[in-house]
Amino acid sequence: MNFNTILGTKDFLEYLRGKQASFLLACSVTNTAQIKGISQAGIPGKMYLTPTLDAEFLATKEVRSLDNIATTTKGIPTPALITRAVHELKAFSNLEFLNLGFEILPKFEYFKIHDFDITASENIKTGANIDAMEVFEKGVEFGQNYKTSSEYTILAETIPAGTTTAMATALALGYDCKELFSSSFKNSPNSIKDEVLKKALENIKPNMDIFERLSCVSDNMIIFNAGFILGIQATKHKLILAGGTQMAAVLLTVNSILKTMGGEIDSSKLALCTTKWLFEDESSDIKALLELLDFKINAYNSQFDFSTSKSKVLKLYDKGEAKEGVGAGAALVYASINGIKKEDIINKVEEFLGE
Amino acid sequence: MNFNTILGTKDFLEYLRGKQASFLLACSVTNTAQIKGISQAGIPGKMYLTPTLDAEFLATKEVRSLDNIATTTKGIPTPALITRAVHELKAFSNLEFLNLGFEILPKFEYFKIHDFDITASENIKTGANIDAMEVFEKGVEFGQNYKTSSEYTILAETIPAGTTTAMATALALGYDCKELFSSSFKNSPNSIKDEVLKKALENIKPNMDIFERLSCVSDNMIIFNAGFILGIQATKHKLILAGGTQMAAVLLTVNSILKTMGGEIDSSKLALCTTKWLFEDESSDIKALLELLDFKINAYNSQFDFSTSKSKVLKLYDKGEAKEGVGAGAALVYASINGIKKEDIINKVEEFLGE
Repeated sequence: MNFNTILGTKDFLEYLRGKQASFLLACSVTNTAQIKGISQAGIPGKMYLTPTLDAEFLATKEVRSLDNIATTTKGIPTPALITRAVHELKAFSNLEFLNLGFEILPKFEYFKIHDFDITASENIKTGANIDAMEVFEKGVEFGQNYKTSSEYTILAETIPAGTTTAMATALALGYDCKELFSSSFKNSPNSIKDEVLKKALENIKPNMDIFERLSCVSDNMIIFNAGFILGIQATKHKLILAGGTQMAAVLLTVNSILKTMGGEIDSSKLALCTTKWLFEDESSDIKALLELLDFKINAYNSQFDFSTSKSKVLKLYDKGEAKEGVGAGAALVYASINGIKKEDIINKVEEFLGE
Repeated sequence: MNFNTILGTKDFLEYLRGKQASFLLACSVTNTAQIKGISQAGIPGKMYLTPTLDAEFLATKEVRSLDNIATTTKGIPTPALITRAVHELKAFSNLEFLNLGFEILPKFEYFKIHDFDITASENIKTGANIDAMEVFEKGVEFGQNYKTSSEYTILAETIPAGTTTAMATALALGYDCKELFSSSFKNSPNSIKDEVLKKALENIKPNMDIFERLSCVSDNMIIFNAGFILGIQATKHKLILAGGTQMAAVLLTVNSILKTMGGEIDSSKLALCTTKWLFEDESSDIKALLELLDFKINAYNSQFDFSTSKSKVLKLYDKGEAKEGVGAGAALVYASINGIKKEDIINKVEEFLGE
């Protein structure tokens, strides 16, 4: 099992080979997920539970706030299973959770849930209504004070409908990227998504500044993590953004803020890691999205797939369903720089499914 | 390989997944072990050497104070082999030894042996003759000042005839638990043990306080560790008690002291971990013993066994011989939360035996 370099050199990951990572899961709800058919990342009508269930499963291998693990309507299990499998084979040194607007707190003890007094954001169709400056500043402050025993941290996300808000964010900030975005559907629900995006972007007025734009169409995950990335620059800590187009939107937001505010970023401490499925996705283009940035970024994808699995639902990942989330891509890259075998991961995930 | 939750939730161990543990081995001799047939944990006539040999083997993979490793009369090797195997596959961050009454100091350099000026205790049949208050206070002080780089510590024991003194301790403290105790024999040597217990408990007078009772029938491991558990409460450090019924006796002692002295314990920082063999032992009941406590305790057992081993002596573990000691259960649980495979442990142990 290996990784592929999308942008930059492989040296960033090679340097981290064998080192244990901390893992942060940014958990958020946007009520955009309530729009029928907008997302597959959860149970229709209960999308708000997905971050809670992902957090519970990742931490304890149990879902406690529902009877069963979250699957798509086609029965594809959450990528949290992949991240959990890696954690069992080569544990992260620390698992922590960022409460960027849970509707229901995950039910577990001991694990740290960082609380920022941030609530779920509203449907971007009518306006997300986020105090973007405040959320951003909370991210900056968290980054500035971030301490962990490991040399680097994997920052992942779970937010249903997050690809829609990510796309709205990038478009509202003026990037020419309409065709570059992904969704957890194989065939992105373009008519529904397009309508939501059209409505959302109608709320953007030309004289709005960055934060006003983000307030309308973005989500807490993107805004907070843009701040976190800039805040953590004050330290020597290395950060892996675990995700595909949503983490690209975080970087585009960072890019816009730097351009407006005139700051600089040492992006050599930063990388993005995603899955093979997202990298090969025909309806999005992660490389092109990252090339919109004014700074250089290391980006990688895992070469893991379920080609040798006997599970039919897992093989749907290889057909482009689900693709990414809960840090699956970065977890797989982490596995690959820690000598974990593909078959051991597949066996674990199959075991979770009772297959 | 996985662990099973006996009491509490799995969250305590899940939180520690991937974190490196310090390992403390409490080493003690009670001359109760000189009673013929009372214990299998060593060589008849040389039981006093077992803690020394266990310490040497755990630290160096060599026995230096004797020609060969300690086995039972049936040839079953000490569980120190299991703990050592885990240490080779996923090392503890630190191995330290508590001298709670060695007869012979282990022969090694560099490893820290904490000295408390505690000597081996006497045969409980005629009275252990321990200054229980002093040993307890030494434990408290050691706990209060305990510092280590890791987030948690595994506290294990090696003391032949320790299940006898553990049972005497619990009975002398008034717990109704005669049927709940274990021994390193498959068929607990009840007639010998019963006679020792009867004699030992005859020395307990109704007006004796806790420490007077402990002075008569307990051992240094139990008394010191009861103090250590209470002393370490002053810190945030998490502690895993590695053992079965003997560590349960430590907790029962803590419980009695708290009841008498009116203190409280935050037992969320505490857990007990043992082997599958001890958990499934028909002649003891670890769960029932722990349910005698007035505070809640997390308790787990490893699911490891030697079912796939080709070694006949190792398979005797699966038949209920030996069962636990030298932190074998907690070491196996530690392996399971660090992604170590059962087969790798079995291979190591077989290698130690030259099989």
